[in-house]
Amino acid sequence: MGLLIVGTLGLDNVATPFDKVDNALGGSATYISLAASYFTGPVYLMGVVGDDFPQKYIDLLENHNVDLEGLQIIDEGKTFRWSGKYHYDLNVRDTLFTELNVFENFDPIVPDNYKKAKFVCLGNIDPVLQIKVLDQMDNTNFVVCDTMNYWIEGKKDVLVKLLPRVNVLIINDSEARLLAKEPNLIKASKIIRDMGPEILIIKKGEHGALLFTEDTIFSAPAYPMEMIYDPTGAGDSFAGGFTGYLHKTHDLSSENMKRAVIYGSAMASFCVEKFSTQGLEELKYYRIQDRYREFLNLTKVDEK
Amino acid sequence: MGLLIVGTLGLDNVATPFDKVDNALGGSATYISLAASYFTGPVYLMGVVGDDFPQKYIDLLENHNVDLEGLQIIDEGKTFRWSGKYHYDLNVRDTLFTELNVFENFDPIVPDNYKKAKFVCLGNIDPVLQIKVLDQMDNTNFVVCDTMNYWIEGKKDVLVKLLPRVNVLIINDSEARLLAKEPNLIKASKIIRDMGPEILIIKKGEHGALLFTEDTIFSAPAYPMEMIYDPTGAGDSFAGGFTGYLHKTHDLSSENMKRAVIYGSAMASFCVEKFSTQGLEELKYYRIQDRYREFLNLTKVDEK
Repeated sequence: MGLLIVGTLGLDNVATPFDKVDNALGGSATYISLAASYFTGPVYLMGVVGDDFPQKYIDLLENHNVDLEGLQIIDEGKTFRWSGKYHYDLNVRDTLFTELNVFENFDPIVPDNYKKAKFVCLGNIDPVLQIKVLDQMDNTNFVVCDTMNYWIEGKKDVLVKLLPRVNVLIINDSEARLLAKEPNLIKASKIIRDMGPEILIIKKGEHGALLFTEDTIFSAPAYPMEMIYDPTGAGDSFAGGFTGYLHKTHDLSSENMKRAVIYGSAMASFCVEKFSTQGLEELKYYRIQDRYREFLNLTKVDEK
Repeated sequence: MGLLIVGTLGLDNVATPFDKVDNALGGSATYISLAASYFTGPVYLMGVVGDDFPQKYIDLLENHNVDLEGLQIIDEGKTFRWSGKYHYDLNVRDTLFTELNVFENFDPIVPDNYKKAKFVCLGNIDPVLQIKVLDQMDNTNFVVCDTMNYWIEGKKDVLVKLLPRVNVLIINDSEARLLAKEPNLIKASKIIRDMGPEILIIKKGEHGALLFTEDTIFSAPAYPMEMIYDPTGAGDSFAGGFTGYLHKTHDLSSENMKRAVIYGSAMASFCVEKFSTQGLEELKYYRIQDRYREFLNLTKVDEK
C-alpha cells in the first residue's frame, strides 16, 4: 500500500548569498516525495502543474518511483512559482513573489487507486484542501501534516477542524508559538496536542527538533553544517524522511518515532547541502544510514 | 587543592513577568560558586563587596563551604548593583541600571593560599582583571573562562590576549557570532578555537548547548521547562556545574567534558526554577544526578 503525499509542485527562483537559480524544481510535494522515496514505495503524489512544467522534472520524480497518477497537468496552465532571497545568515528570507497560477483552482481529486493508502502526508497547502483530501480516503489511519504561519494566521478556523484528524503535526518553533499563542515551547506543545494531534514535532532549524508524544519528549540535535547552500525545502525533506521511514517500518511506537525524527533530520541536512532538490536526487541509502549514525553520535554520552 | 572562582558579587533588583525582587543576591562569582559547591571543595571565591553586603549572604556562601579569604569587603563601600527587567518571553531583558560601586576599583589580589589552585574559573568580568588573576597563579593548568558581548565589543584586544591562556571558553550563541564575526556557529567555533581555547562551549538557552573539542562536537539538549521563573545566573550556574564536576572528577577527556556539560546544564535548569540564587541554595546531590539522567533520556534513542 502506498504513501500518499499531497502538496505543491513549483518552479522556484532562489537567491542565496552563494548563488542563484531560476526555474528550479520546488514545492512541498516535490521535496516530501523525493525524501520519502529513499525509504519506501510506492509514493503517490497529488498536486497540480501547468504544461510549462519541464519533462525533466517529471522524469526525475518517476525515476524515484513516484507515482504520478495523482498529478494534474493543466493544458495551457502555468505552474506555481515562488521566488525567494536568503540573507547573509540564511535564517531570514524575503519572498520576492508568489504566483499561484494553476494552484489557485487546484481541486484535489484522489484517484481510486490511492484511496486505500493507510499513510497520508499533507504538505503545506491550504487546510481546506488538506481536509478535502482526507474526506476522500477510505480508511487512512495515519496522517502527518505540515502547515505554516500563513494558514495559522489566515485560516485558523479551518486548521482547528483539521487538527483532530491529524496524528502528527510538524511545524517550526515560531509557528508553534503562533498557533498556541504561548511563547514557552513546552507549554505550547501541550496546547497544540490538546487541539488534536497526539504527536507534535517542532522544527528549530539550526537547533534541531523536538518530538512530543503522550509519554515522551525527545530532543533531536541539528547536524553541524558549515555550509548551508540553500535552505529551501528543508522542512519538507524532514517530513518526507520522517513519514517515509515510518511507512517503511510500520512501527508507530514512541521509540520508532524518535528514529523517524532523526531520519527526517538527516534528509533535511542532505537537502540544504545543495541548491533546490539536487541534494535529494542522487542519494544512496547507505549514506542516509551513515548520517543517521552521525546524528546519534552528536548526543551520545558514555555513561560510565 | 581548591577550585578558584573570580567574578562579581552583587545585589540585584530583578523583575520578571511573574514577580520582582529587590536586593537579591547576584553576581557571576556567586552563582558559579554555589553551583560548583555541590560537586567539589574547597571553592575559593575572589571578589569584592561593600560593607552594605548583608551578613546573611556571607553566611549562605560559607554554609556551602565557599572559602571567602579572597573576598574583599570595602569599609563604607557600596556593593555592585544590577537591575534588570525580563520581557514576556523571558529571552529578552532590559538592564535598567548597573552601578559598579566598589567593583570599579577592584584589584584582585590572589591570597597565597589560593595560588596553587590547578583549576580556575574566570567569571564574566573585565578581561584585564581576568588576566591579572592568571598572572598571580603558580601553576594553574586548567582555566575556564566566561565573557560577554560588552567585553567582546569594548575590549577585544585584551580578550584576544587572554584567550590563548584559556582551556575552555563558555559563551552564548550571539557572543560566539560576534567574537568570530561569522553567523554560522560551526564555522565560528573553528575561528574561536583558533584564537586559543582548545575547548569551546556555546550556550543556546532554550536550545541547549554545543561542546566543541579537537575531535568532538557534542550537542546537549535543553531541559524542557514550562516555567522559567528567573533566567538570571543561568550561564554562571552552567559554568559552576561544569567546572565543579571536572574538578571533582579530574578527568579532562572529551567524554568527561560531555558529562560536565550535562551537569552544567542541570545546574542552570535548577537556577532558573526560582528567583535569584534560591534554586541553588537547598539542592541535594541525588536531585542533581536525577536531573542528569533526565537530560540523558531526552536524547536517548534505542538503536535496535
